[in-house]
Amino acid sequence: MQSLEFLAQLARPADTKVVLLVLDGVGDVRTSEQPQTALDLATTPNLDALASGGSLGRLTPVLPGVTPGSGPGHLGLFGYDPTLPQVDIGRGVLEALGLDLQLGPDDLTARGNFATADANGNLTDRRAGRIPTSECRRLCAALSAAFSEVDGLSVAIHAGEGHRFVLVLSGHELSADLADTDPQALGVPPLEARAENAGGEETATRVGAVIERLNRVLVDEPAANRVLLRGFSKLPNLPQMGDIYRMRCGAFAGYPLYRGVASACGMEVVPCGKHFADLVDATTQSWDDFDFFFLHVKQTDSAGEDGDLVAKAEVLETVDRDLPRLLALGPDVVAITGDHSTPALMKAHSWHPIPLLVSGRLAFVDDSRAFNEQETIHGHLGDLKSHELMGMLLAHAGRLAKFGA
Amino acid sequence: MQSLEFLAQLARPADTKVVLLVLDGVGDVRTSEQPQTALDLATTPNLDALASGGSLGRLTPVLPGVTPGSGPGHLGLFGYDPTLPQVDIGRGVLEALGLDLQLGPDDLTARGNFATADANGNLTDRRAGRIPTSECRRLCAALSAAFSEVDGLSVAIHAGEGHRFVLVLSGHELSADLADTDPQALGVPPLEARAENAGGEETATRVGAVIERLNRVLVDEPAANRVLLRGFSKLPNLPQMGDIYRMRCGAFAGYPLYRGVASACGMEVVPCGKHFADLVDATTQSWDDFDFFFLHVKQTDSAGEDGDLVAKAEVLETVDRDLPRLLALGPDVVAITGDHSTPALMKAHSWHPIPLLVSGRLAFVDDSRAFNEQETIHGHLGDLKSHELMGMLLAHAGRLAKFGA
Repeated sequence: MQSLEFLAQLARPADTKVVLLVLDGVGDVRTSEQPQTALDLATTPNLDALASGGSLGRLTPVLPGVTPGSGPGHLGLFGYDPTLPQVDIGRGVLEALGLDLQLGPDDLTARGNFATADANGNLTDRRAGRIPTSECRRLCAALSAAFSEVDGLSVAIHAGEGHRFVLVLSGHELSADLADTDPQALGVPPLEARAENAGGEETATRVGAVIERLNRVLVDEPAANRVLLRGFSKLPNLPQMGDIYRMRCGAFAGYPLYRGVASACGMEVVPCGKHFADLVDATTQSWDDFDFFFLHVKQTDSAGEDGDLVAKAEVLETVDRDLPRLLALGPDVVAITGDHSTPALMKAHSWHPIPLLVSGRLAFVDDSRAFNEQETIHGHLGDLKSHELMGMLLAHAGRLAKFGA
Repeated sequence: MQSLEFLAQLARPADTKVVLLVLDGVGDVRTSEQPQTALDLATTPNLDALASGGSLGRLTPVLPGVTPGSGPGHLGLFGYDPTLPQVDIGRGVLEALGLDLQLGPDDLTARGNFATADANGNLTDRRAGRIPTSECRRLCAALSAAFSEVDGLSVAIHAGEGHRFVLVLSGHELSADLADTDPQALGVPPLEARAENAGGEETATRVGAVIERLNRVLVDEPAANRVLLRGFSKLPNLPQMGDIYRMRCGAFAGYPLYRGVASACGMEVVPCGKHFADLVDATTQSWDDFDFFFLHVKQTDSAGEDGDLVAKAEVLETVDRDLPRLLALGPDVVAITGDHSTPALMKAHSWHPIPLLVSGRLAFVDDSRAFNEQETIHGHLGDLKSHELMGMLLAHAGRLAKFGA
């Protein structure tokens, strides 16, 4: 956390407002198969004007070549170096945040699968034939109705998509150093809950008892008679953004995962709709309440994941249309970037550097004339790691004291 | 090794092939004295076409301003941060690898000089009048004939160029923490073998006994009657590339030093000739045997060291002519770069960033139109450390899993 501590030392309050607009997965590729990126294809006069009057650059989310998930992608943008082990958000926690669950600091979470086993207890399907979400909900309701604590341990089970659920345990001092119970193979029984070190043994015993109770309730279920648990984890104990940066930080995100990550970093989550216009509405209403506004647009990533370049470009055009309303609020610094690239060609997240635009009174006006990947190569901001961005934003907002005399 | 461990965690097998073509010392300078680089001067339509359809960038081999030898230059390209002490390949080992010697993990090596001393034992010439290689070979043969072990320690002596030889000791637990015996001065006797810490004392005594035996055999030699030893070292215990990257790695290099470094990193060394056409022949024959192909062209560096810009450009033209044969094999990712720059103007290795070209289906097609130093400044890959290249190559080859969810 060295760079965060460094910033914390220098951060000072100021009467300035910073907007960080994250266009999820905005970066794309230009190749012989896909000769234009979504930013190339989209008609975005407002973004281009902002680029002309500000600085461009690029962000590397983790390390060169490394493709991040949404967790590390956003943690980087918020200033946390995602390569540090203490910044890691576990799979169970991410899944829980994605379901909009409120986690306490001591809650232990795991991702669950409903699965099926034969009469000998050997797994026959690790995903229970990919049961529909409705069936998953029914099973979770049955389990919740059957019991909600085991030996003083509170047990909550929340349905996800298809065969997936999230288990949340609380009420004891619990360790997250537990191995997955999913053997990743058929014809063998699920693994027992095992501690990965001595400190986790009591928790392993407790989790073992919970699994037994869950399986007992499922014994006569035709669709699924076993649970498999993975990614045991607790909320990371992250330094909180308000303390580090000395700003009141608000998160405006229409999807739960991003609200959850923002909340884990200490931002206040503001209710809002799913589209950029909704985010601008909510930001407008909360303009006096915060100094830092994180706005998250999900649809660029979704279109990229679908491999739909035209849809991705259309999302950018809707953002462009409502951008003047956001700028009219008078933010001192506006940064527009992504948490990673999601090239439509790849239908997946990628490692490609993320376009970055910073606008503000003290942003160097470089020769950029449009906001797209090729232009950002030559931008004044150069190539930064994502977790270096917050320092730049604070600086442009007059919120960092001089270092040394 | 943090970044290597990070990649090792994410690397996954895939059905893709990666070619890393190292044009040794390819980078050059453009100055008032030398207005063109070798890449500027050479006519290389195939390299330029590859640049037009792929991404350019630049590598910094060690740190800005630091000129590497061939060892650290290549270790960086293979993904090892050469500034880490455990990545250091000692001079004795490098010299041994340069003679194509097979070293075991416990062998202790040193670079030797034949020298002359007067009747009082004081040095009169630290290089024995720069005796010719033929005389060096005769002396080494005489020493080898006289003895091959001292107190149970195996002693092997191998002639190098001129007054240089390599000593390889084995058969005991030996420490490499020994100081040089070359006093770097005349009129004084050679230094005794001394341990640099307590763990090296037994080895120092054993090496002292070997030096005494060597000098005793040389006592009546007119040309050289002393040996000086430097760079005591053992093979570093490097994580092996196959384990880290989960690829079968083959090395195609016509010169022993590069084969040796590749072998120390875990690559399988494939016999081949000295010229690029030979490397392509050998690669063609071994195409099914590997996933990663390291091809090493030495002659660019040799021409640079000779200060012969025209010869360096001609080497590049021969590479360009045979490049289509390499591309016809259908590699998924091709990277072309150097281990360092060797500007003809300087007749030596330098710190100048190394041009880099990456071609592949997912390589961003930037605005580059030729492969030369100036174009690489604006390339999509930007400026990377050499040891960051492997992550980029794995990414482009679909061989890195996503980091985090």
